[in-house]
Amino acid sequence: MPVNLQLDNALPVAGVELVTVSAGLKKDGSSDLVLFSLADSSNCAAVFTRSAFCAAPVTISRSHLDSSQGRIRALLVNSGNANAGTGQPGIAMAEGHCETVAQVLSVSAQAVLPFSTGVIGQLLPDEIMKKGIRTAAQQLSENDCNTHSHWQAAARGIMTTDTQPKITSKSVSIGAQSVTITGMAKGAGMIQPNMATMLSYVFTDAAIGVEDLNTVLREVVDVSFNAITVDSDTSTNDSLVLVATGVGMPLSSTDEHWQDFKDALTRVCLDLAQAIIRDAEGATKFITVNVSGGVDVAECKRVGYAIANSPLVKTAMFASDANVGRLLMAIGKADVDALDPAGVSVSLGDVLVFVNAGIAPGYTEALGAEVMARAEIDVNIDLSRGPASAAIYTCDLSHDYVSINADYRS
Amino acid sequence: MPVNLQLDNALPVAGVELVTVSAGLKKDGSSDLVLFSLADSSNCAAVFTRSAFCAAPVTISRSHLDSSQGRIRALLVNSGNANAGTGQPGIAMAEGHCETVAQVLSVSAQAVLPFSTGVIGQLLPDEIMKKGIRTAAQQLSENDCNTHSHWQAAARGIMTTDTQPKITSKSVSIGAQSVTITGMAKGAGMIQPNMATMLSYVFTDAAIGVEDLNTVLREVVDVSFNAITVDSDTSTNDSLVLVATGVGMPLSSTDEHWQDFKDALTRVCLDLAQAIIRDAEGATKFITVNVSGGVDVAECKRVGYAIANSPLVKTAMFASDANVGRLLMAIGKADVDALDPAGVSVSLGDVLVFVNAGIAPGYTEALGAEVMARAEIDVNIDLSRGPASAAIYTCDLSHDYVSINADYRS
Repeated sequence: MPVNLQLDNALPVAGVELVTVSAGLKKDGSSDLVLFSLADSSNCAAVFTRSAFCAAPVTISRSHLDSSQGRIRALLVNSGNANAGTGQPGIAMAEGHCETVAQVLSVSAQAVLPFSTGVIGQLLPDEIMKKGIRTAAQQLSENDCNTHSHWQAAARGIMTTDTQPKITSKSVSIGAQSVTITGMAKGAGMIQPNMATMLSYVFTDAAIGVEDLNTVLREVVDVSFNAITVDSDTSTNDSLVLVATGVGMPLSSTDEHWQDFKDALTRVCLDLAQAIIRDAEGATKFITVNVSGGVDVAECKRVGYAIANSPLVKTAMFASDANVGRLLMAIGKADVDALDPAGVSVSLGDVLVFVNAGIAPGYTEALGAEVMARAEIDVNIDLSRGPASAAIYTCDLSHDYVSINADYRS
Repeated sequence: MPVNLQLDNALPVAGVELVTVSAGLKKDGSSDLVLFSLADSSNCAAVFTRSAFCAAPVTISRSHLDSSQGRIRALLVNSGNANAGTGQPGIAMAEGHCETVAQVLSVSAQAVLPFSTGVIGQLLPDEIMKKGIRTAAQQLSENDCNTHSHWQAAARGIMTTDTQPKITSKSVSIGAQSVTITGMAKGAGMIQPNMATMLSYVFTDAAIGVEDLNTVLREVVDVSFNAITVDSDTSTNDSLVLVATGVGMPLSSTDEHWQDFKDALTRVCLDLAQAIIRDAEGATKFITVNVSGGVDVAECKRVGYAIANSPLVKTAMFASDANVGRLLMAIGKADVDALDPAGVSVSLGDVLVFVNAGIAPGYTEALGAEVMARAEIDVNIDLSRGPASAAIYTCDLSHDYVSINADYRS
């Protein structure tokens, strides 16, 4: 059961046509292939997993994005098979699928980015993929493929163990005009970004140069997809793509309204990133770890992740146990140089729990228990040694996480 | 249920007198305080947690070890309360308990090392501790306190969530003489050494200088207590103490038999470290991750820990699922600089699973499943890029781990 997940606002973005089909990759016959066709004015930026074992489609997407200098015309996403750990045959296959897309859409293969998610270590069924691509292209050529329901279907087609589709939109008024941003994401486990341990596609109709797109994507990802963790595990396939179709108003980082656009983009990415946590495998709590008073953002994130990834903290959260000892333990192991414990304070929600190297005066277990009983818990850490802060979003570790991950392939 | 844990060999070590009492710190009335009295010829070395939130007894032990230059006369261990996160009152209390021990044993307070394990964030009950110390000292003065059963009782008295005491001995023949080494340990969760996330006390009757003791302890801990993980969490109280009572034969690192002594000491520490994993909270499998072909030991350990700490690998182990995808994922995120996936091979036991960037020729799920069904599983990774190797020991992540840690304090 997702924790307070209500994300299904899907405004169509001009310049995108998209089709979702059931190609036959998933055993249950649900939709598993999405083809996005992009206006020829589109620019694209992306960030990918840092895994040394990155999947074949990640290798090809990196290469195509580079050789086409961000002038991308199509995105091909399949769920059900990750095409990872598949060696040279997997690379050849991802390249072949791009060529099939290029053929049916009459674009260059270098302008197609492939993405896969699902089981690792098995070759994609080539004929099923090619047939699915042709079916999708056929539909693209016959219908208007940019309605609310096309976007909803795509958000569902990229899912694996997600229990709900994750899609959201913002509309930004800029002078007399407006810009639309719509993003979708999938991911429920194997989630610690680095980059984002999931697939996410964010589109805007604005016309934005490739350099600005790349810069804003990196800034936004740092506070959204790179601030979440389910289980500290980083996938082989993580990809986040930002497309500006260019059919709407022009925008650049030197415009006075750029910050408005960036704020809306941040909100879309943060809502999607948090949705992944809300729908995380077995999650019963949504936990925000706010770390302030750090020397730099990096040490704040280290403390945040030490808490968010600690199995002992996560099981205490599952038990609604205000276990300050485990929080102190996690802060203590976060490798913060010369941390003075006497300067550290810990609050659960508004309740001060630990200060001056000891349990806070007036703190009682009952006060802590009241906060811990909630479905949304804020853990606030003040390191009192600098101006930096960071927030990390995570969930608890429940019996269901073990059940889901001990039965995944059966 | 511990995994193949049979460790209860307890040879008395000359020069140690030890008493275990039920002071009243544990709710169930079981033994919770151990006092070790050491011959005045004793030398001592120790390594401690690197947690920034180290417990009061760790601070005091470090200080006393330093000021007494390793000439330690007593160890005081209590279980049931960690005296961590207790600020200045906790420090004063640990110091006070050393003074009580000093008084009753007629030694200097600087020659007493205190250790605590149990719940974090609560002050020790001072009177219960002092009464317990006096009761223990009374027994020390009245009886022979160095029999097999005294050692067995001490191994039990330091336990918290352990299901079994962990104690083991080796006797080393050196020329016509022999040296005895006996060690005990506790720890079942919050276990990733750095240092060792547990308490362990190892004694030998040999006469060894403080410098040699410190050197050999650091060498041995690297391949034993610093090579295990239950849940990646590092405790505030981890301590490993090595005592040479000096009543037996003299030994130094320049002796031709030093390596024999070191080998036996390594065996004792490795058996204890592995016993902690075998008795880990909720463990149903004992897993050895062997990483070879690394550029240095550090990168081998990074890969080993990335696998051993991955919740997705650990849940797959619990499910006896030969999930090579999760192993590749974990290797991929281990931050090994410029790792070539094509050079990495993965075996489960003797079964080659992954080689040349793809599933190994002839590998079948049935072959993997046969290995995964065992209670002891070897995961063998060859990085093929250098001469270094390392082994990391861990367990699976089961429903019982969640149950134990979600109910700990209730």
